[in-house]
Amino acid sequence: MQQQISVITLGVADLARSKHFYVGGFDWAPVFETSEIVFYQMNGFVLGTWLASALQADMRRPSAVAPGAFALAHNVPSTHEVQPLLDRLASHGGRLLRAADAPPHGGFRGYVADPDDHAWEIAFNPAWPISAEGHVTFGT
Amino acid sequence: MQQQISVITLGVADLARSKHFYVGGFDWAPVFETSEIVFYQMNGFVLGTWLASALQADMRRPSAVAPGAFALAHNVPSTHEVQPLLDRLASHGGRLLRAADAPPHGGFRGYVADPDDHAWEIAFNPAWPISAEGHVTFGT
Repeated sequence: MQQQISVITLGVADLARSKHFYVGGFDWAPVFETSEIVFYQMNGFVLGTWLASALQADMRRPSAVAPGAFALAHNVPSTHEVQPLLDRLASHGGRLLRAADAPPHGGFRGYVADPDDHAWEIAFNPAWPISAEGHVTFGT
Repeated sequence: MQQQISVITLGVADLARSKHFYVGGFDWAPVFETSEIVFYQMNGFVLGTWLASALQADMRRPSAVAPGAFALAHNVPSTHEVQPLLDRLASHGGRLLRAADAPPHGGFRGYVADPDDHAWEIAFNPAWPISAEGHVTFGT
């Protein structure tokens, strides 16, 4: 079976607040939006931010809450870009969870929660190449 | 800034149980594994399944729990592959949340929770092309 994820959908309470974080903080551009959902075209898949009530109804899971036991990561090209991006995201409605430092497994990273409490790791990982199109390959 | 997600990391309680779902159910192959984490090379990014306690400590977020307010989606090439894959995942430690049916926005989909209660949508979406390498492009 194709080793593929098509969409990551995050439940959000307020689309404008969420867009301020993703568009203002990350400087990403939506590819499509309605009053219920905003889609972003990512590196080989799609990120969706959908009103949490609609997502919960769709997946028949009213119990879904944040913070969930997961994290998304955005890798940057150098160590010195990690903390500034965490700060920038925090100034666009995010909340710093962990200031950047060096983990035992190498590289450099910190964490910030988005306005809906979804965790983002911002990391520099020299072992994982990123292509010009943003495709990330595992490496050791 | 590159419109890119490098990693999706899911917190798991039992790596062997989780692998039974992802390797046995989806038929995916790990690219790297230790006693704490299993990585899968995906379509332009990496999926990690990490012991939840380690992930929580790393992101300084002991409150992270499942089910989180998010869903991952795996799209398949035709309507008739949706329910069989949901059934196959359910028989590998998953739990059906919603049997496949047609949503108002088109296509065909159902939901299954993985053994750690992370939600997966299995969908057929004729508007979103998938390349041979598994790269998914938004379409309407």
